[in-house]
Amino acid sequence: MSQLRKDVITGEWVIIAQEREGRPYQFGEKDNIDECPFCPGNEHMTPGETLRINDKNGWQLRVVPNKFPAVCENNDSVDDQIFFYTICEGTGRHEIVIETPLHNKGLHELGQQKISDVFIACRKRFQELSQLEGIEYVQIFKNCGKNGGASLAHSHSQIVALSFVPRRIQKEMRGAKKYYDRKQKCVFCDLIKEEIVFEKRIIFQNEHFIVATVFAPKFAYETIFLPKIHEHDFSKVDDKVIYSFAEAFEKTMAMMTKVLGDFPYNLILHTAPYNSEENYYHWHVELVPRVSYHAGFEIATEACVNSMFPEEAARRIRG
Amino acid sequence: MSQLRKDVITGEWVIIAQEREGRPYQFGEKDNIDECPFCPGNEHMTPGETLRINDKNGWQLRVVPNKFPAVCENNDSVDDQIFFYTICEGTGRHEIVIETPLHNKGLHELGQQKISDVFIACRKRFQELSQLEGIEYVQIFKNCGKNGGASLAHSHSQIVALSFVPRRIQKEMRGAKKYYDRKQKCVFCDLIKEEIVFEKRIIFQNEHFIVATVFAPKFAYETIFLPKIHEHDFSKVDDKVIYSFAEAFEKTMAMMTKVLGDFPYNLILHTAPYNSEENYYHWHVELVPRVSYHAGFEIATEACVNSMFPEEAARRIRG
Repeated sequence: MSQLRKDVITGEWVIIAQEREGRPYQFGEKDNIDECPFCPGNEHMTPGETLRINDKNGWQLRVVPNKFPAVCENNDSVDDQIFFYTICEGTGRHEIVIETPLHNKGLHELGQQKISDVFIACRKRFQELSQLEGIEYVQIFKNCGKNGGASLAHSHSQIVALSFVPRRIQKEMRGAKKYYDRKQKCVFCDLIKEEIVFEKRIIFQNEHFIVATVFAPKFAYETIFLPKIHEHDFSKVDDKVIYSFAEAFEKTMAMMTKVLGDFPYNLILHTAPYNSEENYYHWHVELVPRVSYHAGFEIATEACVNSMFPEEAARRIRG
Repeated sequence: MSQLRKDVITGEWVIIAQEREGRPYQFGEKDNIDECPFCPGNEHMTPGETLRINDKNGWQLRVVPNKFPAVCENNDSVDDQIFFYTICEGTGRHEIVIETPLHNKGLHELGQQKISDVFIACRKRFQELSQLEGIEYVQIFKNCGKNGGASLAHSHSQIVALSFVPRRIQKEMRGAKKYYDRKQKCVFCDLIKEEIVFEKRIIFQNEHFIVATVFAPKFAYETIFLPKIHEHDFSKVDDKVIYSFAEAFEKTMAMMTKVLGDFPYNLILHTAPYNSEENYYHWHVELVPRVSYHAGFEIATEACVNSMFPEEAARRIRG
């Protein structure tokens, strides 16, 4: 059972999920294939699948409920005012995408087809979870490496279906709407044009994507994958666009690995909510290498200090 | 020279300070007293002092400009619209409080009087820096330990004078104002009353402070030091209140160290801007142990998942 608690000063919600304290931690010296719940042969260690892709050698991808969820299927969500604080139940779903049966391969090492399969599986679960009662938003993301916050080494992504639209998404949608109201244009489409003209932050381009370091980055080497075809809702994206994303991701990771080594990162998919009409938004993917720290200043102010210009980061990545 | 850049979607500012990339990193195996710029004998390694406390044995505390500042004394700050992006110069000051001549002592190990001296020095610099032209806010904070984001082991705090009021402060002030407008009362004063009645999140109390784990924490063991006497502006706080804070900090750190060992942390001082009239605000200090991670979910959503209830954290700390 998880709980949502509202900060009485700022109105910000946090999720408290005490069961997560019990989750296994398998990394570096503690990494152990025999005990890896995501390895073939250990399928009994996870709850039953919600999606599975097979080939002639057995499963290639599994989506399973998270045994240590941040949010879960609860009783009715009830607002509760205790003294002057507000609490409600952390209703939702939390699933894990086991991206490969191979214990020692990263997502970017699986090849374009299998990377694409992972995001097509995510799109399917995004659609299905979004339609459950009480679900307002489905967040897809990946933690890779210890500093990326992963607790298991075996490559996986996560899908969290939430009873609220998160603050970050609200902020981006509000910003995009404001721009649209002023200019009758999508801010992300304009950003793509500006980046192509400016060129110094571009890392990679193919038919469907530009990959660029972020103009105002919160983390060193922060990078955005922007689809050239305007679409606000990830569930409506074509297979061929996802296939093109897979190429962009594979190539970008290869370039970054040359500069940063085997680096920890977070991968984040931002979309308007499923079936929403917020057409001024534009789905995209963010890649956040976790090679810089947020310290006291960032927590104190919520302004980030970055010690590298994104133009310099792009220059290094392009090599 | 540092730069402020505005995110074109969300309007958030980030600071880019490339000089910071050159700052020394001295920790664990790389920690070296001979090369420590904060040790006695190495005073020439820092810029000249802006404040110094001596006793018969020499200096006990020094405040010096940061050699690798996040913001600095620039030419006039000029807004610059490049393509559709906004940039301006990162004008301000960044100072370091070298809290002790002793290389191997943490702030909480210095004794109540010397801890108090550190915060009295911070109050003085807060007043002085706040009065410089173009300064809108002065943020005082401390990074301790590698995961706390410190780059030097020798105990120090930081003071950053900014040309803008940071988002976090604005958010807290807005929340406090909203509460005040509705109830004609300070939300922090009410929070103190509620916490004392509820009791399960209280860690420590003395004449002037309550110390409690935070109701809706973003990090495990997140703790707030709330002064019982209402005051919005840190520069107006009495020496005796600061002396009382020093006791609360010393005792809290001793209790936490029993549970968490020698833990990394951030210490953050929040106040209304100097000489402002926002009397609905209430200054306080936040202690953020860095024993939990913010991963992809937190970056993607700006909602935090915490795996420990603050009531449980307080129970463990109280022992």
